[in-house]
Amino acid sequence: MAFNKRSKIKLLLKSSKIGEKTTIMGWVRTKRGNKNVSFIAINDGSIINNYQVVADPNVISEDILKRITTGACIKVTGKVVASQGAGQDSELIAEQIEVLGEADTEKYPLQPKKHSMEFLRENAHLRMRTNTFGAVFRVRHALAFAVHKYFNDKGFFYIHTPIITASDAEGAGETFRVSTLDMKNPPLTDDGAIDYSKDFFERETNLTVSGQLEGELAAMALAEIYTFGPTFRAENSNTTRHLAEFWMIEPEMAFYDAEDNQDLAEDFLKSIISYAMEHCSADLEFLDKRAADENAKKPANERTDLGLLERLRFVAEHDFERITYTEAINILQNSKPNKKKKFNYLIEEWGADLQSEHERFLVEKHFKKPVILTDYPKDIKAFYMKQNEDGKTVAAMDILFPGIGEIVGGSQREENMEKLTIRMDEMGISQEELYWYLDTRRFGTTPHSGFGLGFERMVQFVTGMGNIRDVIAFPRTPGNAEF
Amino acid sequence: MAFNKRSKIKLLLKSSKIGEKTTIMGWVRTKRGNKNVSFIAINDGSIINNYQVVADPNVISEDILKRITTGACIKVTGKVVASQGAGQDSELIAEQIEVLGEADTEKYPLQPKKHSMEFLRENAHLRMRTNTFGAVFRVRHALAFAVHKYFNDKGFFYIHTPIITASDAEGAGETFRVSTLDMKNPPLTDDGAIDYSKDFFERETNLTVSGQLEGELAAMALAEIYTFGPTFRAENSNTTRHLAEFWMIEPEMAFYDAEDNQDLAEDFLKSIISYAMEHCSADLEFLDKRAADENAKKPANERTDLGLLERLRFVAEHDFERITYTEAINILQNSKPNKKKKFNYLIEEWGADLQSEHERFLVEKHFKKPVILTDYPKDIKAFYMKQNEDGKTVAAMDILFPGIGEIVGGSQREENMEKLTIRMDEMGISQEELYWYLDTRRFGTTPHSGFGLGFERMVQFVTGMGNIRDVIAFPRTPGNAEF
Repeated sequence: MAFNKRSKIKLLLKSSKIGEKTTIMGWVRTKRGNKNVSFIAINDGSIINNYQVVADPNVISEDILKRITTGACIKVTGKVVASQGAGQDSELIAEQIEVLGEADTEKYPLQPKKHSMEFLRENAHLRMRTNTFGAVFRVRHALAFAVHKYFNDKGFFYIHTPIITASDAEGAGETFRVSTLDMKNPPLTDDGAIDYSKDFFERETNLTVSGQLEGELAAMALAEIYTFGPTFRAENSNTTRHLAEFWMIEPEMAFYDAEDNQDLAEDFLKSIISYAMEHCSADLEFLDKRAADENAKKPANERTDLGLLERLRFVAEHDFERITYTEAINILQNSKPNKKKKFNYLIEEWGADLQSEHERFLVEKHFKKPVILTDYPKDIKAFYMKQNEDGKTVAAMDILFPGIGEIVGGSQREENMEKLTIRMDEMGISQEELYWYLDTRRFGTTPHSGFGLGFERMVQFVTGMGNIRDVIAFPRTPGNAEF
Repeated sequence: MAFNKRSKIKLLLKSSKIGEKTTIMGWVRTKRGNKNVSFIAINDGSIINNYQVVADPNVISEDILKRITTGACIKVTGKVVASQGAGQDSELIAEQIEVLGEADTEKYPLQPKKHSMEFLRENAHLRMRTNTFGAVFRVRHALAFAVHKYFNDKGFFYIHTPIITASDAEGAGETFRVSTLDMKNPPLTDDGAIDYSKDFFERETNLTVSGQLEGELAAMALAEIYTFGPTFRAENSNTTRHLAEFWMIEPEMAFYDAEDNQDLAEDFLKSIISYAMEHCSADLEFLDKRAADENAKKPANERTDLGLLERLRFVAEHDFERITYTEAINILQNSKPNKKKKFNYLIEEWGADLQSEHERFLVEKHFKKPVILTDYPKDIKAFYMKQNEDGKTVAAMDILFPGIGEIVGGSQREENMEKLTIRMDEMGISQEELYWYLDTRRFGTTPHSGFGLGFERMVQFVTGMGNIRDVIAFPRTPGNAEF
């Protein structure tokens, strides 16, 4: 017999069911009241708002009411009436309440008081039951859906690139080894090395750092594709901006040059931000207030001018600034913090790699808007980026966001076989191992481009959460693989 | 300067641009003709259909025409005219052709002839340029988008559960170890074991076999969630049905009992099949013909009655048969192949695990439609399944599809703390390790259910591809991690 006969609170709040009988189910956030009446706030996860249940002790037994505590799960049937109190249009007069699951007040960790983010991270298996994390994960969902919708509407195809790979060809970072060999007694070759030919895949394998190279293969057949999958970095970075396991979105497009790539990336970012604003207004209003509270607690010089919602609207509605690396270096060299030696890394000459402090200066102080930085020196970028005619730079682009720094990295790809292989040789990248990548240049090559968006950084930007560990359900970081 | 100014062939075929000037870009499938005219079939990946370019050697130089061979990438600008030939409404009279990338006829592997599936698997980096694989990956995209759309429309939230986990609590199969320890000289504890406390996550970690347990955590806060991510099995299965890395969709729903779960799963499967039929008609018509050709080559007793499209329509339009395991055992015991000892595993008594041959008999011979098999013996199912009142069975469901076998496995989950922990103890599953899972029963428990769909099996069903390695871009199987 079907059990799931209920009104979702999100829909109940929208509809006008006054006078009707209905059933809701959810978790108790608070119970207050007196001998004559209890007010129970229920949340069912569908929306940040609770729904108020009014329980008359003449109708609902004392035994039941006693078991209704914060965290308990209950099923309430009753009549929807116009609400007397402020804050809601309607409420439910309980005719019957069933306690589906109790939550012992002595033991349930999430009592109605302020918990530290650290405490909630340790209780990540329960933290989605709080207002903040409920909002974060509903927004995360909306952003993920917006990504799929955006690309699907444009005729892009979603490709699942492999998670387990045999090469870290891109050299993008340290990798996790994937193996089924016995760590205690691994098979060895005659010269004493680990014999990976005995491993599951008959070679050494790692977790992917990027689906780009495989994405390019698909783009050279289907023209416009994107990936959206997990990627991994075995870097010992204990920061608020790094995860060992995170999700990346990587579109790759045949027939796009560097400018097409920039246009797409800007439109894409604006579009998914707008989608979240349109579909998560209640959650974002809550997070906006939360961010304002956090902001007010900061020292004056660290406070941001714009509130969360203002910032989202600003980014969605204004053109991004597009400048070359060379222009950026000029701006930075002549900037106050460089002249007054306030930067930790002073910009002394063309060719310097930009640090987070420089990116933030450009975005937050100089232009006060997102910046697309293009045409970086080839020596600080990957082998596959298209070489510009100047012989010094490549058609790279990084998109920098306020408060986040680099959120997108991409480039036009080098489609010329000769230029690409010369660069690979210079950088010591094996042509033999990447024969399959080179085949796309050997056979039917064409100008093409792509970029990568770190999904969690985007969720951070939209939710205003300061720590990246708070925008993924169960974060993986050095020393932490709980749950 | 933006390069991507072109008409996509999919849109060009739909529109009526007769008389207009336009540009297309794509890969040459074939070139035929004579001294006076060349007909070039171009494909740009947007749709299975090629677009015909007509090139007059008085307009397009001989040098250019010579370089236009199968696999080359070209850019054609010209005038759209009504087509003289059969098979297309319009064609492009070339005014200018640029060869973006050549494809040496001597070396390009995909010449216009029939290639074996084995050969194409070895050339997986190029096979998406063929009709068959172009169609498969467009359908795969449509199915993936349909999954997201279905759940988003219903108010479910997409959750990214962790890929790297510290436990194989479900015991669902052999796992891949994830580590950054030096395989040659791993750190050891005092008693000579591998010291995983020195590993990246300070414990032993594996690739996930299922996101279910973490999905349940989210469902106990957000009520209705789903996962769609990669899962891994380190099983040495070299079959047409197994991958070491595959994608799973796992919805988990608070307040759903076994029947709600079945209703959702059936509606979901029908919905995504219908979506693919609606949005991939050209691709599915091609795959339907392909499947018919394959079918005709089979020995008479292995042929299927229904064509691919007929099968999809049938599944989308008819109720699935719902029977209990106990009813299935009765049917199987009294079946011809059991009595005549044609089954490899004869069904002798209640409690037997069903093999693929039994599932296929039920679906393909007995009911001739998808079957939802419910209420399996508890001893052949996982610890978390809800125990039925009979003390013998659990509220499991498997959904069996013709030609595929098990495509969905799910259950109502045991929400009762006492029953769950007793079962865990019986099965030797550590309560301590799974304290976080048990907390959902400890605090605010409620009836809830969920299921898992193997995405590649679904793509196989919809595309009619016989080998699971042909429905994922770069398959991972024992001994194979190419690309």
